[in-house]
Amino acid sequence: MYRSLVRRIRPLINTDIAKLARYTPVLTDAIEKYTSEWFGRTGLSTAVLRPQSNDELSSIMRYCDSERIGVTIVGGNTGLVGATLSSAGELMVSLERMNRIIGVDSTGSTATVEAGVILETLQQALSKHGLTTPYDLGARGSCTVGGNISTNAGGINFIRYGPLRGHVVGVEVVLPNGEILDLMSECWKDNSGVDLKQLFIGSEGTLGVITKARLHCPPLPQFKSVALLQVPGGFSESVLEPMKLARQTLSESLSAFEFMDSEGMGLVSPLPDGLSEGSFTVLVEVSGSGPVGERLQSFLEALPGDQIEGVVASDIESMKKLWHFRESLPVKMAQLGPNLKYDVSLPQSHFYSLVEAVRAEYSRHPDVLKVVGYGHVADSNLHLNIALKSPNPSLSDKVSNFVYPRVADLKGSISAEHGIGRDKLNELPLVRSANAVRLIRELKKQFDPNGILNPGRTIPTLD
Amino acid sequence: MYRSLVRRIRPLINTDIAKLARYTPVLTDAIEKYTSEWFGRTGLSTAVLRPQSNDELSSIMRYCDSERIGVTIVGGNTGLVGATLSSAGELMVSLERMNRIIGVDSTGSTATVEAGVILETLQQALSKHGLTTPYDLGARGSCTVGGNISTNAGGINFIRYGPLRGHVVGVEVVLPNGEILDLMSECWKDNSGVDLKQLFIGSEGTLGVITKARLHCPPLPQFKSVALLQVPGGFSESVLEPMKLARQTLSESLSAFEFMDSEGMGLVSPLPDGLSEGSFTVLVEVSGSGPVGERLQSFLEALPGDQIEGVVASDIESMKKLWHFRESLPVKMAQLGPNLKYDVSLPQSHFYSLVEAVRAEYSRHPDVLKVVGYGHVADSNLHLNIALKSPNPSLSDKVSNFVYPRVADLKGSISAEHGIGRDKLNELPLVRSANAVRLIRELKKQFDPNGILNPGRTIPTLD
Repeated sequence: MYRSLVRRIRPLINTDIAKLARYTPVLTDAIEKYTSEWFGRTGLSTAVLRPQSNDELSSIMRYCDSERIGVTIVGGNTGLVGATLSSAGELMVSLERMNRIIGVDSTGSTATVEAGVILETLQQALSKHGLTTPYDLGARGSCTVGGNISTNAGGINFIRYGPLRGHVVGVEVVLPNGEILDLMSECWKDNSGVDLKQLFIGSEGTLGVITKARLHCPPLPQFKSVALLQVPGGFSESVLEPMKLARQTLSESLSAFEFMDSEGMGLVSPLPDGLSEGSFTVLVEVSGSGPVGERLQSFLEALPGDQIEGVVASDIESMKKLWHFRESLPVKMAQLGPNLKYDVSLPQSHFYSLVEAVRAEYSRHPDVLKVVGYGHVADSNLHLNIALKSPNPSLSDKVSNFVYPRVADLKGSISAEHGIGRDKLNELPLVRSANAVRLIRELKKQFDPNGILNPGRTIPTLD
Repeated sequence: MYRSLVRRIRPLINTDIAKLARYTPVLTDAIEKYTSEWFGRTGLSTAVLRPQSNDELSSIMRYCDSERIGVTIVGGNTGLVGATLSSAGELMVSLERMNRIIGVDSTGSTATVEAGVILETLQQALSKHGLTTPYDLGARGSCTVGGNISTNAGGINFIRYGPLRGHVVGVEVVLPNGEILDLMSECWKDNSGVDLKQLFIGSEGTLGVITKARLHCPPLPQFKSVALLQVPGGFSESVLEPMKLARQTLSESLSAFEFMDSEGMGLVSPLPDGLSEGSFTVLVEVSGSGPVGERLQSFLEALPGDQIEGVVASDIESMKKLWHFRESLPVKMAQLGPNLKYDVSLPQSHFYSLVEAVRAEYSRHPDVLKVVGYGHVADSNLHLNIALKSPNPSLSDKVSNFVYPRVADLKGSISAEHGIGRDKLNELPLVRSANAVRLIRELKKQFDPNGILNPGRTIPTLD
């Protein structure tokens, strides 16, 4: 059903470009900035439009819908699953010129922004009001709020604030047929029936284009402390037990709990005095408007055993250094060679066994340099990276066929935070039942009957 | 379109009851427990089924769908907007016998329950694991988790945990046609494409019946303190400024911030020493796994001015007493006479002006006894109650026509937490655009093409 609709899409031709130029200038030169993904893959589109308003975008969508031209929407190009990789003949639409911060309501603790606002820009504006965003990502300097909402972005503070979708107060959406859908509200607490905006959050731009949003914004933490520590033992003693203790005793003060395995720590050495490369390492961040450093200290003292090594930092520079061990890990992995990257959720009791199983199966493969596990363990989010000597698509397929069915068997998620895009489309049926996929496809048909929006991404076509 | 489908519904007859009894016993005597709402209104259904499994419910739904019999689903009967008030000829289905707590995962911080579990029962089970539910309600002793999720329940800790929908890890749903839809996951962080389960959360059982859920459960707070206080001045000085200060300085420790106006406080006197009936009163609750009492003390000391009166409680009995002033307020109002109750959200800067406007317009009406404003001010949630001498439907209509358009003009919500049900169906178009209502009705048509599920509630029919 959906596939036959996709087939009706026709490629963009020069006449279209001339007509679309009536609405907003068309870029056709030096457009790699828009067509290329963060890690270097490039889409095939040859024309980019950058509307400045809902009305401009509405005209563009109406034209493309009536002409059956595929449209790929792009925010900050920081996605990792191919959601913004355009096919040949598709128009690209960037929201980078819809980048106004419309207002900050410090009484209601909300910010209203256009979709193209860079996350870090919003964070800076909010800090003047004593507020911050209810999520944070390494890509904060490039990613856009619209892209973040469209992908229900996760990130490092999920354990504190929960999913981004819980903080979206309202959105404006331009539908594939050009209709403007106003789902704005002033108030975070709103139970006026079916919450339509939830459909656009996390559907990666396949049902409509989010152009404006109001976000609930929590208070900017005034105190913060970070510990990097090693508790002797296997994964359970070193990571899971400290995580449980941190959740119990740090509770509302806990803003991040990350782990890195020894293979990963070997890449980011030299480590601070006392820490060794041979152990699991956890990073604990506490933050809040009170003296959280004492809370962190109590937690550290409550850890069982006397062989615990750790470093605590409470000034900004030292905290950055400790976070650097965690954040530089994927960078160091990428420097080794091409990476197979898995962003999955798993019940924590089965968390590390997946890394061990992959290592047992593939670490002796001649193309494999290193298998590393790290991630947001308190959120059940494992990042499993495998550095290769050179690209190897057949090995990639093999590892995926090893990893994803195991994740599905454990009722985990094949995408903890990055979404489905193009890359995980074939795996979706592993974790979504046949009737769920059918219902999702019917939603696509309702909202985008001609299938012009981000075609072939996120929502599976017929088998 | 939808209306014509609704017309195809036929009333339940004796033959149906005989056939349905094949699946599970049919109750026809003493069924007021199921057909009556919390505040005494009674639906017109004459038969109640209480399935014990997805399979039983699936058979019931399949039968009713093929026979075009309307079905009203009921949890704990604690709704306030008529969502569970059945029409004549409808079958009622209660989920009270699907009430198992299937498991608590203390490592992953989740609980898996059937829909009929009473909230307080779950809270008690969780407390043994050092966990609690990410929401709490006055109705905790009667309301069910399934009903809570179906209505995206709000409650007193919204400021701490945000909307319930952010904590729903997975659900199982029986669709109107009897299909069982498995949207379960083990992991809170899951971005595997379109999040179908969000459609069932907050749609008040009009798209499918939630029969099972997994919830993220935060740590049970080990420390708690409550203050009841009065800061001299108007609403801004007495309520808004303290609220802003509380959010900034208590931040992650803040778990409730309530206000009551002087008309309300007059009803719940005698007040603790030092507090007077003539002022706005706020209740501040802090909670967490650390010594939050000191945090509360710092907040109180940071309040400007020297005429602040207040009482602080840190032991359970004293805290209960302070909460009692807040929780007994609607009870005392109900004792005066029938109440017109408005549960709305408003931008806080316009919060109390609505109460004042209603008072100015209606307090001299011969049937009006008292106009009171109170509520979860930090969540932008105002409860406006008007006690009458006797029921007065035409006055009720007048006040609604006064209140709701004002709320809509301010981009507030006509239902902050209780939902739409039957009672607010006509007002929905005030806060939802025509195309939003059309899309919601198309969703209804997709999920419930014969319109058998909770007919005439939550989703408007054609004009």
